[in-house]
Amino acid sequence: MKHADSREQLLNAGVEALHSKGFNGCGVQEITEAAGVPKGSFYNYFASKEAFSVEVLEHYWEEGARRNLAVLSDESIPALARLKTYFAQRAEVHAKGHYERGCMLGNLATEVTGQSRLVRDRLAGMFAGWVRVMANCVRDARDAGEIDSDLDPKILAEFLVNGWQGAVMRAKVDRDSSAMDQFTKVVFSTLLVKHAEKTAVH
Amino acid sequence: MKHADSREQLLNAGVEALHSKGFNGCGVQEITEAAGVPKGSFYNYFASKEAFSVEVLEHYWEEGARRNLAVLSDESIPALARLKTYFAQRAEVHAKGHYERGCMLGNLATEVTGQSRLVRDRLAGMFAGWVRVMANCVRDARDAGEIDSDLDPKILAEFLVNGWQGAVMRAKVDRDSSAMDQFTKVVFSTLLVKHAEKTAVH
Repeated sequence: MKHADSREQLLNAGVEALHSKGFNGCGVQEITEAAGVPKGSFYNYFASKEAFSVEVLEHYWEEGARRNLAVLSDESIPALARLKTYFAQRAEVHAKGHYERGCMLGNLATEVTGQSRLVRDRLAGMFAGWVRVMANCVRDARDAGEIDSDLDPKILAEFLVNGWQGAVMRAKVDRDSSAMDQFTKVVFSTLLVKHAEKTAVH
Repeated sequence: MKHADSREQLLNAGVEALHSKGFNGCGVQEITEAAGVPKGSFYNYFASKEAFSVEVLEHYWEEGARRNLAVLSDESIPALARLKTYFAQRAEVHAKGHYERGCMLGNLATEVTGQSRLVRDRLAGMFAGWVRVMANCVRDARDAGEIDSDLDPKILAEFLVNGWQGAVMRAKVDRDSSAMDQFTKVVFSTLLVKHAEKTAVH
């Protein structure tokens, strides 16, 4: 196996292990076994399990989470529809996985930030990036008159990203769609609306 | 040391260890050492680390989290003020702890629910109890005309509990008050308001 192949295999096995079991819940040996790479060679590729985890997180972000954000920037779709589509797509993925895994960012945020400054700093950057993309979409929706809010789009985006993390976390406990359904219902009937439409309900 | 004392010491050491390091991040030996109890005696008190963790979680809930909810049911205070006080008190506690620990319920929800059905079931009950108390307070606020919402108070309460968990998680990453500040700002300027007041802003 070529050097680059082994490295990639280890990262893929790492995404699988870290996402399902967490940082402290999986060992280097099980990762090397899953990757089909000799245990002894792990440290040829990565300085430590911590350094490995940062690269695994990066891999998860670049190959998955960050790409999933693309719909939020797709200007061929109205901004409010982009927001709805984004959360609907995420909810669908969690449903397919029976809500077992949650989001790797959220999992590592609660588990490892006290233990690893490296992971914590990288997570902070990813969350900030996620919020940036979402804030642009919220701003687009406001500028297009699809929603009206006195709140800064960035604050709304922070609230949405964190609130979604909370819903994903709760879904891991209840193993059903309730938390995500409730999130969607509250957000799109109260936060991301036009007051004119909303008050007309009364 | 009496049997009951050792048990209590182990549970207290367990709250400390599990809250700061998570389930897989701490070992039985470090817990018995912190409790000043011989390692060998741990299994006289608890059938397994998993069973121990459920009792630790229970201890954390009964001694802390559940008691903190009391303000939400204090009918000597207007319901909206109770909600504001509850979140302000929680934010203060997290600030004092430099946002390092998060909430044990949220931490175990992301870390252990795939590994332990016992922990998962107990967490589900605790979250349901938390939501119940919050929903009653939201309903009180609505019935008193302090807020008006077309949404079921239970759905709003679920959204608040999960959204708060997301804010607490994010604060562990950023180690500052931003996520909690944003939560409070959005919730009390948009979700828990009277439309009459809100539309008057425009």
